[in-house]
Amino acid sequence: MAAAKLEDADALIDSVETFIFDCDGVIWKGDKLIDDGVPETLDLLRSKGKRLVFLTNNSTRSRKQYGSKFRTLGLTVDEEEIFSSSFAAAAYLQSIHFPKDKKVYVIGEEGIINELELAGFQCLGGPSDADKKIELTPGFYMEHDKDVGAVVVGFDRYFNYYKVQYGTLCIRENPGCLFIATSRDTVFQLNGVQEWAGGGSMVGAILGSTKQEPVVVGKPSTFMMDYIAKKFGITTSQICMVGDMLDTDILFGQNGGCKTLLVLSGVTSHEMLQSHNNSIHPDLYTNQISDLLAVKAATV
Amino acid sequence: MAAAKLEDADALIDSVETFIFDCDGVIWKGDKLIDDGVPETLDLLRSKGKRLVFLTNNSTRSRKQYGSKFRTLGLTVDEEEIFSSSFAAAAYLQSIHFPKDKKVYVIGEEGIINELELAGFQCLGGPSDADKKIELTPGFYMEHDKDVGAVVVGFDRYFNYYKVQYGTLCIRENPGCLFIATSRDTVFQLNGVQEWAGGGSMVGAILGSTKQEPVVVGKPSTFMMDYIAKKFGITTSQICMVGDMLDTDILFGQNGGCKTLLVLSGVTSHEMLQSHNNSIHPDLYTNQISDLLAVKAATV
Repeated sequence: MAAAKLEDADALIDSVETFIFDCDGVIWKGDKLIDDGVPETLDLLRSKGKRLVFLTNNSTRSRKQYGSKFRTLGLTVDEEEIFSSSFAAAAYLQSIHFPKDKKVYVIGEEGIINELELAGFQCLGGPSDADKKIELTPGFYMEHDKDVGAVVVGFDRYFNYYKVQYGTLCIRENPGCLFIATSRDTVFQLNGVQEWAGGGSMVGAILGSTKQEPVVVGKPSTFMMDYIAKKFGITTSQICMVGDMLDTDILFGQNGGCKTLLVLSGVTSHEMLQSHNNSIHPDLYTNQISDLLAVKAATV
Repeated sequence: MAAAKLEDADALIDSVETFIFDCDGVIWKGDKLIDDGVPETLDLLRSKGKRLVFLTNNSTRSRKQYGSKFRTLGLTVDEEEIFSSSFAAAAYLQSIHFPKDKKVYVIGEEGIINELELAGFQCLGGPSDADKKIELTPGFYMEHDKDVGAVVVGFDRYFNYYKVQYGTLCIRENPGCLFIATSRDTVFQLNGVQEWAGGGSMVGAILGSTKQEPVVVGKPSTFMMDYIAKKFGITTSQICMVGDMLDTDILFGQNGGCKTLLVLSGVTSHEMLQSHNNSIHPDLYTNQISDLLAVKAATV
């Protein structure tokens, strides 16, 4: 069914207990707020007793680092309200009781390492492998740690062949080694200026050499939905998922049984939403989250 | 149907007009011949009037460079008998009359660049982008050439995020831009000591950020089979494909309607061949190509 344009914000707000917001393209683009109305929008929702949750597939930062980013942008958000896919990787390993004597090889940036170490896991790789090169001389043999029991893969602008080969060796040669993806996003708005190849590239590279499908812990997998619902004791039908990407945010909301609101302030254009090639239809769409204010003002 | 062990080499040789040999794991491993009997085996087949073709998914070298490698190993092979996936990329672009005023962006090593330039195509990328880095500072915008009409992706040990993003921009933003893969091999025996993540990683990365399926010109795609059959005027039922990989070499032979002979001197073990998980069954298998000699001697 085609998405409806958001007309009655009050009715939406009244019907929902928790709003889950994606961040890139919804709250901010790069280092700037999407628009000046973002703080007031969040304040309005809080004043109406709504629970706010911020959920990003961007694994480059930890929850703590995101908390600092929210503050820099003038937004008061508690770290406990922030769920990044870097945190999701750690939460997933905890949920399956991943043994603490096993190690995790990371293809990704410091957010993942920080969250895994905070949860007590031993990490290899990540930023420390950024400049490593392989000289494939005759007879060169690349060693790898046989105690690696999971390879976690997320967006990594310092991606290189060393990391591909290391992760591949762990997954192909260490019995039972897990392959965990923080996200498979094709592109994302990393610095707010253009689209950048996303975590889907790094995950695709490892899939290409192992033929093993990853466990995805970020959107659109429902792992974080179940986690958040359990943590706060809410049923997903009382949640509205707000995001700018159809195949991650909106699909995530639909997979979880939530209401869904697409904002056109990020990756998805109105044309893409209406395209015959698009099979993902949110309940509602609007230009940006501050429309929740504008619409409200118009109906007062 | 389960593969039969090669028992009667004479019967096989008599029934075949052309042998297509994979190289890595069949003729050589790294910089060494698979065994001392390789030259004599090729000589025997030539003496019986058989046409020999050497077909590798390894795109790191050009035909000319492979010619030199054969000579170094003491094998007399004409460049015209060598078909590398680097050559296949150029042959494919020629076959579709890719316009000479368009450019090709290459994620891969010098073999691809050499073959494309030899065929008269304008190239960007390849080894010259090996050390490029992206600093994702606020406001940084990455330009790309709007005249790129094809992105060719193959194995690249100097793979990096710059190349991923450049290729992604071309495919996502240049209307009609092609995505061509020299191979999707998971792993290969690059230096003869262990398995190395193959072209499937680089192709998987671009697939992950574009969701566009590549045109594969290397094995197991039948593009090169059709090309070789046409060039030499042979029907594929008169060909025996000899290789060490089930999902590239043997599948390639089967897709093309050839006889197939698996050798266990490379990636595939006898255990993998017999595994219940394996659905690709060659007509025949043997330890190494020089068994064509040993078996013959035994039956004299």
